Amino acid sequence: MFYHIKELQYTAKPSKPDPVYAKKLQEILGGQYGEISVMMQYLFQGWNCRAEGKYRDMILDIATEEIAHVEMIATMIAQLLDNAPAHDQEQGAKDPVIEAVLGGMNPQHAIVNGLGAQPNDSVGYPWTARYTVASGNLLADFRANLNAESQGRLQAVRLYEMTTDPAVRDMLSFLIARDTMHQNQWLAAIEELEQSQGIVVPSTFNKEYEKQEVSYSFMNYSEGEESRAGRWASGPTLDGQSTFEYVQSPKAMGQKPKLEPGAKYIHGTPPLNFKLEQDSE
Amino acid sequence: MFYHIKELQYTAKPSKPDPVYAKKLQEILGGQYGEISVMMQYLFQGWNCRAEGKYRDMILDIATEEIAHVEMIATMIAQLLDNAPAHDQEQGAKDPVIEAVLGGMNPQHAIVNGLGAQPNDSVGYPWTARYTVASGNLLADFRANLNAESQGRLQAVRLYEMTTDPAVRDMLSFLIARDTMHQNQWLAAIEELEQSQGIVVPSTFNKEYEKQEVSYSFMNYSEGEESRAGRWASGPTLDGQSTFEYVQSPKAMGQKPKLEPGAKYIHGTPPLNFKLEQDSE
Amino acid sequence: MFYHIKELQYTAKPSKPDPVYAKKLQEILGGQYGEISVMMQYLFQGWNCRAEGKYRDMILDIATEEIAHVEMIATMIAQLLDNAPAHDQEQGAKDPVIEAVLGGMNPQHAIVNGLGAQPNDSVGYPWTARYTVASGNLLADFRANLNAESQGRLQAVRLYEMTTDPAVRDMLSFLIARDTMHQNQWLAAIEELEQSQGIVVPSTFNKEYEKQEVSYSFMNYSEGEESRAGRWASGPTLDGQSTFEYVQSPKAMGQKPKLEPGAKYIHGTPPLNFKLEQDSE
Amino acid sequence: MFYHIKELQYTAKPSKPDPVYAKKLQEILGGQYGEISVMMQYLFQGWNCRAEGKYRDMILDIATEEIAHVEMIATMIAQLLDNAPAHDQEQGAKDPVIEAVLGGMNPQHAIVNGLGAQPNDSVGYPWTARYTVASGNLLADFRANLNAESQGRLQAVRLYEMTTDPAVRDMLSFLIARDTMHQNQWLAAIEELEQSQGIVVPSTFNKEYEKQEVSYSFMNYSEGEESRAGRWASGPTLDGQSTFEYVQSPKAMGQKPKLEPGAKYIHGTPPLNFKLEQDSE
Amino acid sequence: MFYHIKELQYTAKPSKPDPVYAKKLQEILGGQYGEISVMMQYLFQGWNCRAEGKYRDMILDIATEEIAHVEMIATMIAQLLDNAPAHDQEQGAKDPVIEAVLGGMNPQHAIVNGLGAQPNDSVGYPWTARYTVASGNLLADFRANLNAESQGRLQAVRLYEMTTDPAVRDMLSFLIARDTMHQNQWLAAIEELEQSQGIVVPSTFNKEYEKQEVSYSFMNYSEGEESRAGRWASGPTLDGQSTFEYVQSPKAMGQKPKLEPGAKYIHGTPPLNFKLEQDSE
Amino acid sequence: MFYHIKELQYTAKPSKPDPVYAKKLQEILGGQYGEISVMMQYLFQGWNCRAEGKYRDMILDIATEEIAHVEMIATMIAQLLDNAPAHDQEQGAKDPVIEAVLGGMNPQHAIVNGLGAQPNDSVGYPWTARYTVASGNLLADFRANLNAESQGRLQAVRLYEMTTDPAVRDMLSFLIARDTMHQNQWLAAIEELEQSQGIVVPSTFNKEYEKQEVSYSFMNYSEGEESRAGRWASGPTLDGQSTFEYVQSPKAMGQKPKLEPGAKYIHGTPPLNFKLEQDSE
Repeated sequence: MFYHIKELQYTAKPSKPDPVYAKKLQEILGGQYGEISVMMQYLFQGWNCRAEGKYRDMILDIATEEIAHVEMIATMIAQLLDNAPAHDQEQGAKDPVIEAVLGGMNPQHAIVNGLGAQPNDSVGYPWTARYTVASGNLLADFRANLNAESQGRLQAVRLYEMTTDPAVRDMLSFLIARDTMHQNQWLAAIEELEQSQGIVVPSTFNKEYEKQEVSYSFMNYSEGEESRAGRWASGPTLDGQSTFEYVQSPKAMGQKPKLEPGAKYIHGTPPLNFKLEQDSE
Repeated sequence: MFYHIKELQYTAKPSKPDPVYAKKLQEILGGQYGEISVMMQYLFQGWNCRAEGKYRDMILDIATEEIAHVEMIATMIAQLLDNAPAHDQEQGAKDPVIEAVLGGMNPQHAIVNGLGAQPNDSVGYPWTARYTVASGNLLADFRANLNAESQGRLQAVRLYEMTTDPAVRDMLSFLIARDTMHQNQWLAAIEELEQSQGIVVPSTFNKEYEKQEVSYSFMNYSEGEESRAGRWASGPTLDGQSTFEYVQSPKAMGQKPKLEPGAKYIHGTPPLNFKLEQDSE
Repeated sequence: MFYHIKELQYTAKPSKPDPVYAKKLQEILGGQYGEISVMMQYLFQGWNCRAEGKYRDMILDIATEEIAHVEMIATMIAQLLDNAPAHDQEQGAKDPVIEAVLGGMNPQHAIVNGLGAQPNDSVGYPWTARYTVASGNLLADFRANLNAESQGRLQAVRLYEMTTDPAVRDMLSFLIARDTMHQNQWLAAIEELEQSQGIVVPSTFNKEYEKQEVSYSFMNYSEGEESRAGRWASGPTLDGQSTFEYVQSPKAMGQKPKLEPGAKYIHGTPPLNFKLEQDSE
Repeated sequence: MFYHIKELQYTAKPSKPDPVYAKKLQEILGGQYGEISVMMQYLFQGWNCRAEGKYRDMILDIATEEIAHVEMIATMIAQLLDNAPAHDQEQGAKDPVIEAVLGGMNPQHAIVNGLGAQPNDSVGYPWTARYTVASGNLLADFRANLNAESQGRLQAVRLYEMTTDPAVRDMLSFLIARDTMHQNQWLAAIEELEQSQGIVVPSTFNKEYEKQEVSYSFMNYSEGEESRAGRWASGPTLDGQSTFEYVQSPKAMGQKPKLEPGAKYIHGTPPLNFKLEQDSE
Repeated sequence: MFYHIKELQYTAKPSKPDPVYAKKLQEILGGQYGEISVMMQYLFQGWNCRAEGKYRDMILDIATEEIAHVEMIATMIAQLLDNAPAHDQEQGAKDPVIEAVLGGMNPQHAIVNGLGAQPNDSVGYPWTARYTVASGNLLADFRANLNAESQGRLQAVRLYEMTTDPAVRDMLSFLIARDTMHQNQWLAAIEELEQSQGIVVPSTFNKEYEKQEVSYSFMNYSEGEESRAGRWASGPTLDGQSTFEYVQSPKAMGQKPKLEPGAKYIHGTPPLNFKLEQDSE
Repeated sequence: MFYHIKELQYTAKPSKPDPVYAKKLQEILGGQYGEISVMMQYLFQGWNCRAEGKYRDMILDIATEEIAHVEMIATMIAQLLDNAPAHDQEQGAKDPVIEAVLGGMNPQHAIVNGLGAQPNDSVGYPWTARYTVASGNLLADFRANLNAESQGRLQAVRLYEMTTDPAVRDMLSFLIARDTMHQNQWLAAIEELEQSQGIVVPSTFNKEYEKQEVSYSFMNYSEGEESRAGRWASGPTLDGQSTFEYVQSPKAMGQKPKLEPGAKYIHGTPPLNFKLEQDSE
């Protein structure tokens, strides 16, 4: 169960409206790696958690914080939209600043949301649950989380560069700092799990059932060998079980496929001698 | 540019048809972490790559391999669908095996695809480009890739458990082995990048611009302190810059939001004394 | 900002697993009128609220409760999935109960979520932000909310009829009761707003600017006049401004459209004498 | 079955082209509350209607009118796009009006639709059938319809404010008037149904089966009690069955969830002592 | 503008309910090539039509017929759902027919639509406007229409094979016949347009601006030359302008791409010597 | 299996950056008829192909070429985005060229993709697998392919008109030429198949099972008879089996639908005398 505190986790109040920036800021609200994504991802990972209690608790703590981040950015966007212009184009064109705003705004911010935030990304695409990951395997999911916090911090930093409003930057500096923590946090949790399980997910699958002769081969599917120069092509493998092998010219190991003709009731492509058959019917 | 080899990378030929399993196998073809996702993700990361050549080459090598994985699974699915029944329900109900097949099949495999594979997941949801990640920052993206290979191997292992067909398991054992390699590969590439950049993405953002007092604090947003027991709540942070702090009762640091009334032309909620105003107009 | 309480708002613990029902229950979790929809809808309405404080507070109170409803249903689903079978079809077909389960389960519950809930509906379609409504006009939005609670209670009641598990029914009886309250609540809030604004949304648009001669006409676009029998076709209009008029045979009032030929650079359909022109070029 | 009349229901002919406004006008064509939504919603409600004849007839009458509204707006958009510029950016930038048009246009209007309307909203997101509601319970659905006409009129009014073209405003004044009628119409139909059924949907569910002790409680999930000030927190409930109760500090009534470990074949997170086990295998 | 006729275009009344078949029949209602698709596609092509009048009229005639097809199938589905069972799984499993129905039904038909049709396909995926094509070039669009009627008839035929209900087959036999007409119709319209314009769309683009040396070459991107055996690899081209050429081993004609490093404010992958730079800052 | 060649199929290097055009060019990369669509469509048609070998080979040859087209356009877009500005709006407004760029850019190109291409269309909507067609009937599918190449060439031509950069035009001239070939190719393959099968898809369905009295009738669903003037309304039908008939006033042939009341457990609209019943319970 949850309780709400009326104050925001951190101040979210722009120096002045900027509806064009409001459109951009939507990306870290309702985009693939926006705050709604991590909020929903962590909530579902926590609720579905079948591992020992400290994991469930930790995941739900950060999930709860993410709801507050969604709240902060939504609040910021609503204020960036204060008094957004809604004039017609011709008038706008006479004043380049107004025109710039008119051209760069998300029209739904005015028409649909009445100058409020929306759970969409910066091109107006709605947040979708297919962004979330909750697999029931925590090592896999913590890697998803580390990725989410990496992409999220990267986008917040890019948005920091796109404004000069000190108050907007101040809020972003808070979110960026929290993403620093969250990258550290997932790395710490990953380290803990890898120490007991090893690094290959899932660790419980019997290795004898995998085709081990290709488990450590880098396959070079292009001419040239620039890809040989990386750590992934030589030296011990990261799981400590083998050595990377570089396969210069990988060969096909499978069959040349030839499918059976489809069943008659499917009405696929008829055989070439089809017409004759029909005539004789 | 690309060339096609008629043989498959590895054998993909089931012992016998199994249209119900064909539906399930769609998950690792067109699902969030199916082979289409990694194929498209690696292709776009490679084509957009602005880093030195060995990265572009490596990424496109694995991308090219993934096209072959899509090909193998699609071929397998088409064969699992050979001679799928299309009788009516009542007849099916008399024979429990037929009925089981009828109830568990994806109807589109027959109606739409004529017993062929489709670029969708196991519930028929179409693959969408919002699954892909190509941010222009390789450390961020390699974490996305590590996650994708972890989720992908986990799903392949689960599908391995769901069939007893040795030929299907054989193909999966190949894909599972390649996922072992690809987890190792991305971990190796990540290690290489982290050694020069550090672990926080993006590393090029000046730390002085982030709100450093909250960069290493675990905030406990629930009663109880089970979340204190993990590596993420004490000891040195993973980036080597600080020590984890556990904040038992985090306080709100922001304002209590109060939005301005909306502009008149937006026709939001009128003020409470609205009626009177209108009368006097 | 938010805090989390480890206990659920109400007990959510099934008497025994039922993975087929788990699939159905997803509808009121991640469907169009599931709990995620009302949670997100109320959160965004609250955060965007520009009206006086009691509205924002009330909306966020109920929004916060809805997060707890999402939590309850997700928890219930995870437990309904305990020990779901993952055998192959042929074995299943020998045991009709197992087979029924295999045929009726959502395959992603096992393959993708590892026997956990997912933020999707009962056919596996992901929750999408396009379900939410937050227009900035509270009377409009409270009607959306009343609809959501009506559809939501209807679906919960239907799901109640589809199970005999007393523990599942107990949880649903709680949710159904809360939907009773929430329908009453939105009706009360609507009544309050309508008393000051009138019933037509938005009330602030000058009626002289609308084409008033068609503001109260029921137009009968079919042969026969059964539609004349309802309250909507005669008597005073609900806004108290006029009387319903029944137009037996509405006539077209507009032009027969004729579009200009498209600009040349668009390469639309060429004029009929196109060929000759090209020859002479 | 349907017949088409070549004339439009009402005139739809702009004074002059305005491709930027064409983009905005798409919202009430193919948006969540655009005319396609009400057209499809009413058609499906009518075709699925199991209630007495006057409802089916009335619903299909208005559905048929909505097809004509889609037609009017599509026709208007095609004309607003007449001769939209397709020059390159640099030239545009020299002429602020052209530039404004180029920046604010939907590029698909030219590239994909050849200066025609599209069944999408103002950010280019396609209309989706998940917008429609047809539940088989008319009281529930009429509330959905009332909401749709409220949101729809609100958006039409906002678009009215965004243009100065008298011919566009004229068409909107017609649509706004029809929305006035349709709000009145659904309110009338709702009143009729509520008089026989009561106000809680569905009315046929035995109240003894709901957890009646929470059926009329407003739960305050935040600090402070501003939410106590509304009609929803005291006085008789709108269904006439009880009195609103204000619960100042709602307590959790459910269990602290603890999920069973997942089945082995799911390969979820292994137990902490996993490594040792494997060693002994 | 449109009028509605209460009778259906053709009888749509099943001999008896069959909820499993109802699910499958959704494909030609709300699927990619279902009746909603052709209805919307033809409506938008007609409304956007800038060519001479007979085309607009013809397109809107068939569009209007398609609304009637949607109506017929929706009506059929609602009746196939009459009295669909909603018991629990365990009881169902005792009676294989009931169980078959329970396992094969679309759960939303009961929970969401109250035993009514929905504008979705056979796996429950909603109809989306991205299925429609209206390009402003009639030859291009008539090819889209011919394809739609070909896919549509193919699916209707497959559904005909999947039922033994004579009444359902009777309705399908009507729809299949109309698809025969519509394939003939679009072929006739295409022939008419090709005679004046030629076959390459768009015909108005000056051929000198295309890279004509590759305008008629079949490029063989695989080992082996089976693809040489078809009509597409030799003989005169269909546009009568040239001869097909078979390129056995096509060579790359472009550059080896090398992208510039990204701008600094984008925070892409830092250069390899990044760490040192930072230290000296 | 596939191999990658580092050189592009054709040169893709703009004369100078143009981020606004980059946004537009996304349409033929990730749009409904972009290169990803034909790539995926041909790959799946080829992998699912159950017809004789030359078809599979031919389809996969062109599929493999299309991967190279995706590569070229992605590479072009990344370079068009070089050094895209990310300044704030106010500064931009002072310089109309910069402002034009800022207003017309896709914000995700900077925030999400770090100045790289994305698998989306020109309004940022993600590519979806629902664009692909692979029905198992090659004649049907080749018509889909002919349509795709017609729409694709049309869009490429429109994009050619929208730029003056000779290097961008050069790449487009190559793609346009390939689309000329591909239209010819599919027409040739269609001709070959139609010669053995006839023109109505599917040709294997027994014509006696279709309602032949309506197989060749043009039905005029509007007042006026402009639609009579076309080839589709008179003369021999294209399949050579009959003559087109023009039905001036088509009559309804079906029933006036009347649905049974819904089952009780569905809780649809209660009968009008509902209240009394409940009272007596």
